[in-house]
Amino acid sequence: MVQITRLATTEPDFAQRLEGLLAWESVSDKQVQQTVDNIIDDVRARGDAALLDYTARFDGWQPADAAALEIPPARLAQALSAIPAAQREALQLASERIRAYAGHQALQSWEYREADGTLLGQKVTPLDRVGLYVPGGKAAYPSSVLMNAVPAKVAGVPELIMVVPTPGGELNELVLAAAQIAGVDRAFAIGGAQAVAALAYGTDTIPGCDKIVGPGNIYVATAKRAVFGQVGIDMVAGPSEILVLCDGDTDPDWIAMDLFSQAEHDEDAQSILVTWDAAYLDRVAASIDKLLPTMERSDLIAKALQARGALILARDEDDAARVANDIAPEHLELSVADPEALSRKIRHAGAIFMGRYTAEALGDYCAGPNHVLPTSRTARFSSPLGVYDFQKRSSLIMASAAGAAELAGTASVLARGEGLTAHARSAEYRGSGDA
Amino acid sequence: MVQITRLATTEPDFAQRLEGLLAWESVSDKQVQQTVDNIIDDVRARGDAALLDYTARFDGWQPADAAALEIPPARLAQALSAIPAAQREALQLASERIRAYAGHQALQSWEYREADGTLLGQKVTPLDRVGLYVPGGKAAYPSSVLMNAVPAKVAGVPELIMVVPTPGGELNELVLAAAQIAGVDRAFAIGGAQAVAALAYGTDTIPGCDKIVGPGNIYVATAKRAVFGQVGIDMVAGPSEILVLCDGDTDPDWIAMDLFSQAEHDEDAQSILVTWDAAYLDRVAASIDKLLPTMERSDLIAKALQARGALILARDEDDAARVANDIAPEHLELSVADPEALSRKIRHAGAIFMGRYTAEALGDYCAGPNHVLPTSRTARFSSPLGVYDFQKRSSLIMASAAGAAELAGTASVLARGEGLTAHARSAEYRGSGDA
Repeated sequence: MVQITRLATTEPDFAQRLEGLLAWESVSDKQVQQTVDNIIDDVRARGDAALLDYTARFDGWQPADAAALEIPPARLAQALSAIPAAQREALQLASERIRAYAGHQALQSWEYREADGTLLGQKVTPLDRVGLYVPGGKAAYPSSVLMNAVPAKVAGVPELIMVVPTPGGELNELVLAAAQIAGVDRAFAIGGAQAVAALAYGTDTIPGCDKIVGPGNIYVATAKRAVFGQVGIDMVAGPSEILVLCDGDTDPDWIAMDLFSQAEHDEDAQSILVTWDAAYLDRVAASIDKLLPTMERSDLIAKALQARGALILARDEDDAARVANDIAPEHLELSVADPEALSRKIRHAGAIFMGRYTAEALGDYCAGPNHVLPTSRTARFSSPLGVYDFQKRSSLIMASAAGAAELAGTASVLARGEGLTAHARSAEYRGSGDA
Repeated sequence: MVQITRLATTEPDFAQRLEGLLAWESVSDKQVQQTVDNIIDDVRARGDAALLDYTARFDGWQPADAAALEIPPARLAQALSAIPAAQREALQLASERIRAYAGHQALQSWEYREADGTLLGQKVTPLDRVGLYVPGGKAAYPSSVLMNAVPAKVAGVPELIMVVPTPGGELNELVLAAAQIAGVDRAFAIGGAQAVAALAYGTDTIPGCDKIVGPGNIYVATAKRAVFGQVGIDMVAGPSEILVLCDGDTDPDWIAMDLFSQAEHDEDAQSILVTWDAAYLDRVAASIDKLLPTMERSDLIAKALQARGALILARDEDDAARVANDIAPEHLELSVADPEALSRKIRHAGAIFMGRYTAEALGDYCAGPNHVLPTSRTARFSSPLGVYDFQKRSSLIMASAAGAAELAGTASVLARGEGLTAHARSAEYRGSGDA
């Protein structure tokens, strides 16, 4: 029997107990911070030599020289042709769907002219060079390669540089195959904080990038935070979360398995069910107890469900929607008869999985939308990873002589109001005559 | 005579010398960090009581109680009617132009259906509540209120909360008037790290927000960095910069004044001119020497120009564009005969001011585009503040039964390839039959 927290929104201490379950602060371990700072300083100072040392120390293999850190393009192509056909086809189908969806996200430049001829607009350009961090070893996820790399290429990023640690020198064939499909331009067998430092500052061998994306362990996450500003970063993700809103008419085994699919990630993962059908909570609890022993990662799942999971009884659908907006979950399943109506009540969620057939796992791999999503309630203010994260905007302003004359008066009044005389005079020149 | 660094792109050490001039790292002073951390902890623990204490200590006035921290809406309206008509009209005109431009930036929801009935899309929603930090005292900029508040209201943010410190209890009328015009919903007379903490975590009096925007001193910037994750933040800005590309045919007094208009902000501000007309560098230098003594902030301007300014000779227009892309400036003036042609060669800049009439100062106040722009070369990967910063996206996925059956196969293969069995089984359920 898995002991999962039961809550009801009618309880007087509901808000407080929910808050307690949701609370999660990334621990900024001073020891990790110091280690990462030292590694970054060392890579900035010694470049490739530092990368060779850390690779020997942390990944347990000794590259012959810095050039040996590169995984040649032919090696990626070879991986793609060597993996089983079913996996190759699945990766290709997933990448096509991710690409099709991403195509809808691309920002476009725009401009307009005012009556006096003044032009205003915004110009959209892709980033020049992006670094993609891919974890190695056990947590090697080819789907993550597709989800990070495909939007970057759709955005038009000309150079996409992948880094992936290879513990013991061992390469993950699925990761390499996914990189080949996604169009990764160059790949290097480095990882950890040293790889992040190399991508941020560049070495003789590793090209410096403008942005670094992709998941990683606490050292990688800490390094990304540290180099933020020097380069852009995607986000620093917390544990994975799912919130299921159900009217009580979905097969409880399906919902139990959906809750498991988050819980199997790690013991901090969070799986919560909200329903307004009291009997359904018991049915799902029974499915959990029935199915858990059949799961390969049953210990991990049980730990996560007991530590951070919850079965919540709401008053009605509106009440459940309020809970969802308060939680602002990474993944939100609306397992109800009319998911479109319910979705209109949702203001905050990374991704909304609508209807009984839309398992969150479909979205993790191949539905098309990105699986890199805001966690830890950050969906209140941030968005899924997308093409727009690999583009940026420049404002365009071209004042006509008449436009400048008119604007100059306003700018001058405001600049003088702020005590900025050079601003005022710079504007006034344009209002006063010929260039 | 102001001594400004002279460089030429043909010099062998040009790249290195330019790099040296551009280098600017925000110092993370441990003392400031510790002070800010303590203030945040204290506001989280003691709420309003802490705000009252810090306001007495740092702003030199003792509010009667927490309610006295609020600046009533009527006070904003009163400021607007009390300021001189010329200023009121200038603020109104600027706000209308900022609003018109911002209207072009709003993100729209989109969705599409596939042949099997599966729906995919992204839903765009405004943030619920945004906090706007406005500096008090000498650096009180009403233009900054407009630039931060107007896009938030265009995005549809229902609650916009302004905080502004009032040293000695003194309110800045222009700031209040701008807040009234921009549609600020509530305003509080608090500032510093304590105001940022209150906006991030909420107190009994100050509503907790989802994002905090606006400029501030080192304590404010450090506090924003510290609460990032709990809430969104706009950006942590470095010193202001201008890069002027000129063909040599603009009145050198105009260009000198444009360089001054950045330099008058503070001594770390950066003003750089690039031209491919060697004689023009001397003409601008002469204008600088002629005009500098006439400036109110001549000491500050001279300091900034000497410390971080430069006059650069390029080989030709293409060469100058390369320098611009390398610098990725916050403000880029293209003071040339055909600015549209040159703008097509620019990949990285916060805002591009095209043509001899488009002084950067026009953009600071009233042209329409935002004056909150990426600094310190971050235009390589980030964008001007805009309506899109007050909106976020949620992915939408609604699989039809047929769609789910097809996706389930692909998801299952990939999930099993990653060792995530619960993901695979959750997908397989949807491929196998009725809900």
